[in-house]
Amino acid sequence: MKLLTLSVLSTSLLLASPLVKQANEAGLKAIPSDEDQLMKLIDNPNNPITDKKVELGKKLFFDPRLSKSNIISCNTCHNLATGGIDGVSAAVGHNWAANPHHLNSPTVYNAVFFTSQFWDGRDPDLEKQAQGPIQAHPEMAATKEHVVNTVTSMPEYVSEFKAAYGDKVEITFEKVTDTIATFERVLVTPSRYDEYLNGDENAMSASEKEGLKTFIDMGCVSCHDGVALGGNMNTFEITGKYIHGDIGDFKGNKEGLVKVPTLRNIAETAPYFHNGAIWSLKDAIVEMGRIQLGADISDKDAASIEAFFGALTGTKPDISYPQLPARTATTPKPDMN
Amino acid sequence: MKLLTLSVLSTSLLLASPLVKQANEAGLKAIPSDEDQLMKLIDNPNNPITDKKVELGKKLFFDPRLSKSNIISCNTCHNLATGGIDGVSAAVGHNWAANPHHLNSPTVYNAVFFTSQFWDGRDPDLEKQAQGPIQAHPEMAATKEHVVNTVTSMPEYVSEFKAAYGDKVEITFEKVTDTIATFERVLVTPSRYDEYLNGDENAMSASEKEGLKTFIDMGCVSCHDGVALGGNMNTFEITGKYIHGDIGDFKGNKEGLVKVPTLRNIAETAPYFHNGAIWSLKDAIVEMGRIQLGADISDKDAASIEAFFGALTGTKPDISYPQLPARTATTPKPDMN
Repeated sequence: MKLLTLSVLSTSLLLASPLVKQANEAGLKAIPSDEDQLMKLIDNPNNPITDKKVELGKKLFFDPRLSKSNIISCNTCHNLATGGIDGVSAAVGHNWAANPHHLNSPTVYNAVFFTSQFWDGRDPDLEKQAQGPIQAHPEMAATKEHVVNTVTSMPEYVSEFKAAYGDKVEITFEKVTDTIATFERVLVTPSRYDEYLNGDENAMSASEKEGLKTFIDMGCVSCHDGVALGGNMNTFEITGKYIHGDIGDFKGNKEGLVKVPTLRNIAETAPYFHNGAIWSLKDAIVEMGRIQLGADISDKDAASIEAFFGALTGTKPDISYPQLPARTATTPKPDMN
Repeated sequence: MKLLTLSVLSTSLLLASPLVKQANEAGLKAIPSDEDQLMKLIDNPNNPITDKKVELGKKLFFDPRLSKSNIISCNTCHNLATGGIDGVSAAVGHNWAANPHHLNSPTVYNAVFFTSQFWDGRDPDLEKQAQGPIQAHPEMAATKEHVVNTVTSMPEYVSEFKAAYGDKVEITFEKVTDTIATFERVLVTPSRYDEYLNGDENAMSASEKEGLKTFIDMGCVSCHDGVALGGNMNTFEITGKYIHGDIGDFKGNKEGLVKVPTLRNIAETAPYFHNGAIWSLKDAIVEMGRIQLGADISDKDAASIEAFFGALTGTKPDISYPQLPARTATTPKPDMN
């Protein structure tokens, strides 16, 4: 029995090594297991990661009082308990308004690896991205003044900003969103797939490896590449026009293209596509084959690719639920209208 | 300098002891520092607390998929980051509907100590209470079937129910709400006030002790008594009719009375009263004096009582933000209407 196991193991070792090579050549990259290497990848020289900023950014990320209504936080739509998303087709925000373009909330996990943010890729990084939803009317619907007045009304927040940025810090809207972005930068979820690419041949099962090979061979990797298996500006595709008709009026970027989403934690982030039109991961795989690759992906191949996607479900950072500062007399009141 | 400190200390010891006695005689009770004693107080023989139930209950408490829309969880209105409340006057739920009776969300922290639940005290305990908001249309708006189908559609939840209740467990709506209640039972926040009542004379400042004395002497304690300083069925009062007119159509219980809320963490849980009509704690103290005690509480006395309330801000349990099971093909889809 022991010999048999060993023999299976060494066969898998022999088979797997070329696959890792193929994956690397195809542009797939692991999340580095080395902490310094990872930090290099996720840090922003213009907004460097520090422990104090991460902790403060976490509070702000979870604080619903940044919204006009006081009941919507970043975490409402990018829920860290459910894969960094809200699990509804179109995001619902202030006044229960659905996103007018019927856009689905993208996950915040691993968004640090994207080379552009939003479904039309209009913003370059998380710092810029964080400014959008807080102000967007169907989302948190707050003014910059509301955010600054809210944060500066609570002495605990002011102290934490001073501790993070120095006593002379000016608490601007951009300082608040930069701090939220710093927290988001550490929301990285290494998975068995990374262990596999980083050299542990046994981290993925035989069927998952087979799925990875199918994924590369069929050409999925031509868009879903890099560390995030997606999220790169250069790989926009014209999915918008095809998936279940044109729900909403979203037209993509200037060229009518939509950003390719990450596949990390994809098993946890239904519904799929920019309009959240498809709930089944297998259906989404088949639909992508049809639209993007002009291929009829067989049931067997779709199942194989789906098996591989299971290895992309990563370990989430431990997050202690924050205790937020108490409001004071000068904290802006909620406005539900 | 050292001598002076000692002398102040012993004076405070001499002064304080009768106050602890007075507090006890007035019906104020500390959260026991002894864990066995505390457990006796918070446990429910019909639904005993176990670690597995608490952990599972935490997940359910934070799971927005229990709601019809999939975006409202128990934590939305009873936010554990902000004193166990939502910080808006009237709770807002499904379809952005405000509570039709303009009722304010009561804190879930220390609710285990209440002898009745809801503003009209209609339910005896947290197990029964948890069934309400999940089904109420302006809150989570779910049917029992939705809740059961959601939970049983995810194998991880089913395994956790089996681990908590045994392999033969039947996952009913009531089993789900009982489990949420078990989690809520441990949401207890001991404070410096408890340390003081439990014998540490220095746990409260001189002005806080003075405030406690004023609080007792003025008669506030006649309603705000027990472990929770409120929350007892027998101390309903007719605040509803008086505070800023009759916002909403809430008429209290059969006798037109409203439940006395807890004062624990009161500095964190504005706005105040069952209709959330008053945002300033000092104003709320003065208003209560006028309505309930027929007294004009002076600015000095109100400030003194408010100082005492600061000592009621407790230490919240450490809560690691949960990772929830991924939805499956059979998980009910969100319905925003």
